[in-house]
Amino acid sequence: MPKPSGHPKPSCWAVIGAGNGGQSVSAHLAMMGYQVRLYDISPDTVNAINNQGGIHLDGVVQGFGKIDQATTDLGKAVHGAHMIMVIAPATAHRHIAKALAPLLQDGQLIVLHPGATCGALEFTQVLKDEKCMAQVTIGETNSLIYACRSSRPGQATIFGIKKKLLVAALPANKSSQVAAKLKSAYPQVHAADNVFITSFDSTNPIVHPAPILLNTGRIESQKEWLFYWDGFTPAVGAFVEKMDAERIAVGKALGVDLWSCREQYKIEYGVNEKTLSEAVKKTEAYADIKGPNSLETRYLLEDIPMGLVPLVAIGKRLHVPVERMETILKLGEFILGRDLTHTGRTLERMGLSGMNAVEMRQFIETGI
Amino acid sequence: MPKPSGHPKPSCWAVIGAGNGGQSVSAHLAMMGYQVRLYDISPDTVNAINNQGGIHLDGVVQGFGKIDQATTDLGKAVHGAHMIMVIAPATAHRHIAKALAPLLQDGQLIVLHPGATCGALEFTQVLKDEKCMAQVTIGETNSLIYACRSSRPGQATIFGIKKKLLVAALPANKSSQVAAKLKSAYPQVHAADNVFITSFDSTNPIVHPAPILLNTGRIESQKEWLFYWDGFTPAVGAFVEKMDAERIAVGKALGVDLWSCREQYKIEYGVNEKTLSEAVKKTEAYADIKGPNSLETRYLLEDIPMGLVPLVAIGKRLHVPVERMETILKLGEFILGRDLTHTGRTLERMGLSGMNAVEMRQFIETGI
Repeated sequence: MPKPSGHPKPSCWAVIGAGNGGQSVSAHLAMMGYQVRLYDISPDTVNAINNQGGIHLDGVVQGFGKIDQATTDLGKAVHGAHMIMVIAPATAHRHIAKALAPLLQDGQLIVLHPGATCGALEFTQVLKDEKCMAQVTIGETNSLIYACRSSRPGQATIFGIKKKLLVAALPANKSSQVAAKLKSAYPQVHAADNVFITSFDSTNPIVHPAPILLNTGRIESQKEWLFYWDGFTPAVGAFVEKMDAERIAVGKALGVDLWSCREQYKIEYGVNEKTLSEAVKKTEAYADIKGPNSLETRYLLEDIPMGLVPLVAIGKRLHVPVERMETILKLGEFILGRDLTHTGRTLERMGLSGMNAVEMRQFIETGI
Repeated sequence: MPKPSGHPKPSCWAVIGAGNGGQSVSAHLAMMGYQVRLYDISPDTVNAINNQGGIHLDGVVQGFGKIDQATTDLGKAVHGAHMIMVIAPATAHRHIAKALAPLLQDGQLIVLHPGATCGALEFTQVLKDEKCMAQVTIGETNSLIYACRSSRPGQATIFGIKKKLLVAALPANKSSQVAAKLKSAYPQVHAADNVFITSFDSTNPIVHPAPILLNTGRIESQKEWLFYWDGFTPAVGAFVEKMDAERIAVGKALGVDLWSCREQYKIEYGVNEKTLSEAVKKTEAYADIKGPNSLETRYLLEDIPMGLVPLVAIGKRLHVPVERMETILKLGEFILGRDLTHTGRTLERMGLSGMNAVEMRQFIETGI
């Protein structure tokens, strides 16, 4: 279990979102000795946590995290907080940014944990649009620090803690400052060069939507299936690998070297197979991951607008071939009968409109 | 069972292709009293038929059809034949046209049975490219006259005979002449106004590729499944219906009124449901139609290049939105890792390059 290190310790952390991740982080931080305030939109969730005074933790971290205050009042949650950690579906980031804009104070750090693809960029643009004058720093992590689950408000289980978590800030020269603050609680945190690394490192937009759509008939048949073990058949795996190459090409166009999905499996799980389809079937951690039995799943509703949309938008802008990603994006929109593009992270919403690769790089380095 | 009517009777029919359809047609025509020659590429098939002197028919037509000659020599099959009926996968039409070009004689009728989407157009263009000087007429039907199956060379079973078969010729003013010749054997034949009607009437490119791709995971899982009853889940059916609306819009842009898939089910099977997904499940004829357990299926390999490719090419040329058809076309190419566009019916291969809607109409009416 990680322990607080010698880094300067933020006295007060505000956690936005009391889902699986938000409750796990809040409880764990509280057990480490931090003052934690927890915001959620649901009065029931907030009341349940306040009634018992905190959150019970099970799994690899066990104990009770005393929560200073759970609240549905965003202002109360963040006022005076040194670190504001947003642990919410990426589809909510925009709304949270808007709500936070008038409440933020000079010097606050905001970390999207994780940011999905280009969360810090979108968040920053919303604050700009809202004319937020507070001098704050926006960062994002490449994933969630835990594998965790909450069965009810006031309880969470941490199944595992990642060995390495990347964080980057916008502009990039603030990354090490944000990393240092996070390291006080999580020594696994490393500063990444810039938010393109943390953003494009996420493979959710690659490994989730295509296998869902290519299993549409199975999903709607209401039979149980395992997302990775059953869903990643040879053709699905081969397609996902080629889609992954498009993600890597987008990164390359912006000067970022990325691991492929298959290389990530090798590093994270020690699985070394010739194809992605074989690799996921050798990944024991995937043995129990069930596939959804409805198309109303975050694998489409979050990973398309907050993942494929920005990747495709940037790729097309930079003339990188992203046809497979675009095909899945469109198919997802057609199958769901919903516009996921204009509700997602467009160039405009990321503040990247009209920029070429050099200008995009400059923007994430300097913020202007 | 249809009988020869009073129309002028072609004394010699050549059937190209000894698959399910070709053998059923040949045997049935022979039983009606026509002289039939049957061409196939396979010596084994040809020998088996010659050895027994013809083809045994079962099902709704029973008996023995004496085949004048089965041959692997295309020249022998078609020399002097009045009617040449091509009953082959649409992917073979191009090759057959090329092989026939130097062999054709003035006055011969060639009918693609069926033509799939724009078969007569492609066939005509190949003869032009090959500088075929013979004065022949090219026609196409909208589907195969039978539901049939051949278990081995020399045997075929006709499960059912369609009540109505459309035929059109290129140019359109030859349609009634071709229809009259076919009517001598098949009174169910009606002349359609032009080949756009017979071509766009085919719903195979709509009902086959999308349900296959949206069931990719299921197909590769090697479990048995029913193509229509299991595969057309609500989201699949809804998507196919919207794809179908694109087909209808392409027809409309060329002055052709088409029935929707769902209207066709109503007319052909008396099934009247609110959605396509429900309609196919109420269609008893579909109860036994199994889904393929490999992606190497004509539902993709034939229906994409010979169906979606021409529909998308014409649609885009005429500024008709065909995004869903195009998405499935691309997805099929990506999943199979194969170019299905340039091997398929492009505008150029259909002889429609650079034409607007008025010019396309004029071309199918007049042939120039």
